[in-house]
Amino acid sequence: MSEIATTPTPPYYAVIFSSLRTDGDHGYGEMADKMVALASTQQGFLGIESAREGLGITVSYWTDLESIRQWKSNAGHLVAQKLGHELWYSSFKTRIAKVEHDYGI
Amino acid sequence: MSEIATTPTPPYYAVIFSSLRTDGDHGYGEMADKMVALASTQQGFLGIESAREGLGITVSYWTDLESIRQWKSNAGHLVAQKLGHELWYSSFKTRIAKVEHDYGI
Repeated sequence: MSEIATTPTPPYYAVIFSSLRTDGDHGYGEMADKMVALASTQQGFLGIESAREGLGITVSYWTDLESIRQWKSNAGHLVAQKLGHELWYSSFKTRIAKVEHDYGI
Repeated sequence: MSEIATTPTPPYYAVIFSSLRTDGDHGYGEMADKMVALASTQQGFLGIESAREGLGITVSYWTDLESIRQWKSNAGHLVAQKLGHELWYSSFKTRIAKVEHDYGI
């Protein structure tokens, strides 16, 4: 189970990835785990939260936009993105957002 | 099942609410449905996406910060927030973020 990410005092960035899957696994589960592990090693990575209940929502947190650009163009991630388009997702939306304020318990 | 929200061209705002539940329902399911219905009638509301898989992630989208402030202080929502603190969530984090860019299929 994913936990609530521990993030620093804002500002920082969030990539909100919302998706609907096609039927069947087709290697998705394994690749998803690999991508979380790979993202975690990238410069500027702060944390990740993920849940799927029909709709899947994954939010990754980053220090700055340049780190997000580098992650988007990472070679291993590009392979996953291509398979995502072709095989795993019937639709998705990626939103890049600047976190301005946060609070919680 | 929640769907991917249809949102306008950025900029707009996202409220990312990540939570872990306490055990038992205690009226949570009914209140969650009520809050989605109530939020949908508020000024500036654009859409909402939600999934729970242990960790719950709900992202609501808004035109501007003032609409988010008004929703936070809505009387019905204040009751739900109080019960959330006291009864339903073992921990949560709310992040308010400005969506600067989006893309998808």
